[in-house]
Amino acid sequence: MGESFGAWTMGADHLVMPYVDMANIACGFHASDPHVMSKTIDMALQHDVMIGAHPGYPDLQGFGRRSMAFNDEEICEILIYQIGALKALCESKNAELGYVKPHGALYNDMMRDKTVFRAVVDAVSVFNVPLMILASSNNQDYLDIADRYDVPLLFEAFADRTYLANGTLTPRSMPNAVLKTEDAILSQVQQIAKYGKVTSADGFVIPIEADTLCVHGDNDEAIALIAKIRDQLER
Amino acid sequence: MGESFGAWTMGADHLVMPYVDMANIACGFHASDPHVMSKTIDMALQHDVMIGAHPGYPDLQGFGRRSMAFNDEEICEILIYQIGALKALCESKNAELGYVKPHGALYNDMMRDKTVFRAVVDAVSVFNVPLMILASSNNQDYLDIADRYDVPLLFEAFADRTYLANGTLTPRSMPNAVLKTEDAILSQVQQIAKYGKVTSADGFVIPIEADTLCVHGDNDEAIALIAKIRDQLER
Amino acid sequence: MGESFGAWTMGADHLVMPYVDMANIACGFHASDPHVMSKTIDMALQHDVMIGAHPGYPDLQGFGRRSMAFNDEEICEILIYQIGALKALCESKNAELGYVKPHGALYNDMMRDKTVFRAVVDAVSVFNVPLMILASSNNQDYLDIADRYDVPLLFEAFADRTYLANGTLTPRSMPNAVLKTEDAILSQVQQIAKYGKVTSADGFVIPIEADTLCVHGDNDEAIALIAKIRDQLER
Amino acid sequence: MGESFGAWTMGADHLVMPYVDMANIACGFHASDPHVMSKTIDMALQHDVMIGAHPGYPDLQGFGRRSMAFNDEEICEILIYQIGALKALCESKNAELGYVKPHGALYNDMMRDKTVFRAVVDAVSVFNVPLMILASSNNQDYLDIADRYDVPLLFEAFADRTYLANGTLTPRSMPNAVLKTEDAILSQVQQIAKYGKVTSADGFVIPIEADTLCVHGDNDEAIALIAKIRDQLER
Repeated sequence: MGESFGAWTMGADHLVMPYVDMANIACGFHASDPHVMSKTIDMALQHDVMIGAHPGYPDLQGFGRRSMAFNDEEICEILIYQIGALKALCESKNAELGYVKPHGALYNDMMRDKTVFRAVVDAVSVFNVPLMILASSNNQDYLDIADRYDVPLLFEAFADRTYLANGTLTPRSMPNAVLKTEDAILSQVQQIAKYGKVTSADGFVIPIEADTLCVHGDNDEAIALIAKIRDQLER
Repeated sequence: MGESFGAWTMGADHLVMPYVDMANIACGFHASDPHVMSKTIDMALQHDVMIGAHPGYPDLQGFGRRSMAFNDEEICEILIYQIGALKALCESKNAELGYVKPHGALYNDMMRDKTVFRAVVDAVSVFNVPLMILASSNNQDYLDIADRYDVPLLFEAFADRTYLANGTLTPRSMPNAVLKTEDAILSQVQQIAKYGKVTSADGFVIPIEADTLCVHGDNDEAIALIAKIRDQLER
Repeated sequence: MGESFGAWTMGADHLVMPYVDMANIACGFHASDPHVMSKTIDMALQHDVMIGAHPGYPDLQGFGRRSMAFNDEEICEILIYQIGALKALCESKNAELGYVKPHGALYNDMMRDKTVFRAVVDAVSVFNVPLMILASSNNQDYLDIADRYDVPLLFEAFADRTYLANGTLTPRSMPNAVLKTEDAILSQVQQIAKYGKVTSADGFVIPIEADTLCVHGDNDEAIALIAKIRDQLER
Repeated sequence: MGESFGAWTMGADHLVMPYVDMANIACGFHASDPHVMSKTIDMALQHDVMIGAHPGYPDLQGFGRRSMAFNDEEICEILIYQIGALKALCESKNAELGYVKPHGALYNDMMRDKTVFRAVVDAVSVFNVPLMILASSNNQDYLDIADRYDVPLLFEAFADRTYLANGTLTPRSMPNAVLKTEDAILSQVQQIAKYGKVTSADGFVIPIEADTLCVHGDNDEAIALIAKIRDQLER
């Protein structure tokens, strides 16, 4: 959410907001700007949606999808900067910051490299909120590190991405990275929510303990689907 | 302070820090970046100097010295964003944010245009800290507005800038805007600090009630002078 | 055209391109980036559309719509930089740069302030192409200046904007700045193209000598209208 | 050269310019801006110094020293954009663009990855000027690729950097990457210029065919040394 920038709009935040419980709001480095952040907080408040900071690498043109060679100290600093900016905008409207979820290349780098993960946890510990990361079969490794900084973790599963047998996401560069049919997506959602399991792209049933479910809302179809997912989860 | 950016250094912050009580730290829009901000907070802590947020217009190439046509809502938003970012970096080091002083063109716009001033006060009210503005003969006008937002004001006088008879600064575009000799500067400092008055460039003695004194530290001479000013004020 | 930026799209360039003779391509300062510029040049080549450089103030977040206090030397430099960048991308594809039309606040500043206009003409003179400006009743004033730099001028009229009695555009801040019905637009286009005249918002018939007609293509309706305008002009 | 940016100065270009034959001028993506570029071209013209474009990754805060994940098409586009911008500023002053030398992480990526190198060569081929790259024992590999694009290569050796036995530079992360004494630097310069050889950090004498010598001019000592190197080469 809040990934518009200046005169450019992205996403249909007002259509998605009614169907979600938590909204990741971009913080101005990979997308968004102070005005877009402010308007998105208003919208979240209106729909009683929990607000999460969605900080990324400082690369507007690349939308934070290109990994950048920051050291751990710098990663910690750019996160505190961005989260602090969003938190202050929240406070100006009596809204609360609920959690933090890094964006794009930073999210991937954090899941892949424990040094980056530690830097992220260190930054989040300043704000007394949970950090949202990818649910996988080795949740415990991440919990061990986060515990040292007293940072709670929220694990998220993806509604429309396929998984590898080791519990990580199939990289976007692979042809089968994304589930394409509504049926496949709804069935994966049910498997995760009801049974704590997911069937990997190559057919293995693996355990996955997730607290939250990540959906995308960039096009009309996606938004229609969100309503159906919501409906199924509430049954 | 903290007006370096990436690989570029500006100012000799480590030489100036020992002589000041308050340091304005740039917040990344007109100068500085999260790493420079972090290092400058460390330095302020080390010398027990009060930290002020120094937000500006988003214009690195112009160093925030070019006025930009933001409306009052946007001004409020870019200020909350920047101040919040600095405040969070302070909190990560158990440092406190002490006050806010806008930078460059934003400072001038705020003193010239009450709509801008109100937007600034509105933003600062989120943080429960004082706002630092230019001391002049009409301090009361600004106090009236700030009172409505419960924002205390700090009035600053300039050690090395000349004043007009109406109590505003001589614009930098005028030849006599800046005091050039050490004697003239030290004498103006004494007049302000001891008698609450300043002699304008055209010879009028006008009242000026200032809480703090603004000095610049961009070159070797300036830094030597700061030590002398400090010495004189402490006598 | 070419006003997308990174992951953000703006306009439906591929739908508009078949109906226009000339395309203003943004140059990376207020919108666009090297990749978008490159793709837009490809599209113009494909439809045999003349390419114009559309340089603006360096303000992505404000989309070049906020005036910035540049002096004439700096305006000349930022224009040469942007036009040169686009020209080189054209040359890499054996396309030609056909003309220059400044964007947004820079366009308005140029029409309002002869010093800015001179700086723009000076920059354009480096490239041996015409400069496109607003057709008005005082075209001759601009021709006199441009002649001194040997820069040909192209005058453009607006299909969907209303005019004041003095031949300038009704400012966007006024309620009647934009023509809203298809009939009104098509009738203004015919009046300009056939008779070299336009009826101002307050009812005066004023002369307007235009070489080209500016249309906008940001939404579906606008695009449908472009086809009709094209059709009418070709009758 | 020309690596200042807005209000920040870097390097003492006016002191270095009299001693060099060729000046790499930054193009606004990792450093510099249109005004700094323009002033640096003036300075080069005054000292009859050949002008080279010094394009980099779009990362001002990181000074182009962080590698960024651009694909080959994008690398080609950001290079044409930057070189075209500098070339146009040159033409506005009747100066000529003499060559291209990529900066920082882009320079390293180009020497390490032939796909990047090809993209760079492709971009440079638009301008009919040579490309400057690192002289090493495998110059021929690069010549073979560049020949296919009709781009001449200039090979540069480094006065103050040490070499590995395979002819590449000792990475800056190693303690002995930089020669620290004046004697060592002058002796390496003589060995390269007179004998076409260099002694690697671990004692091997390796061939190195260089057309030009890269010096740095960021501090007073460096500048004094440039004069001595110049003097030695002219003997």
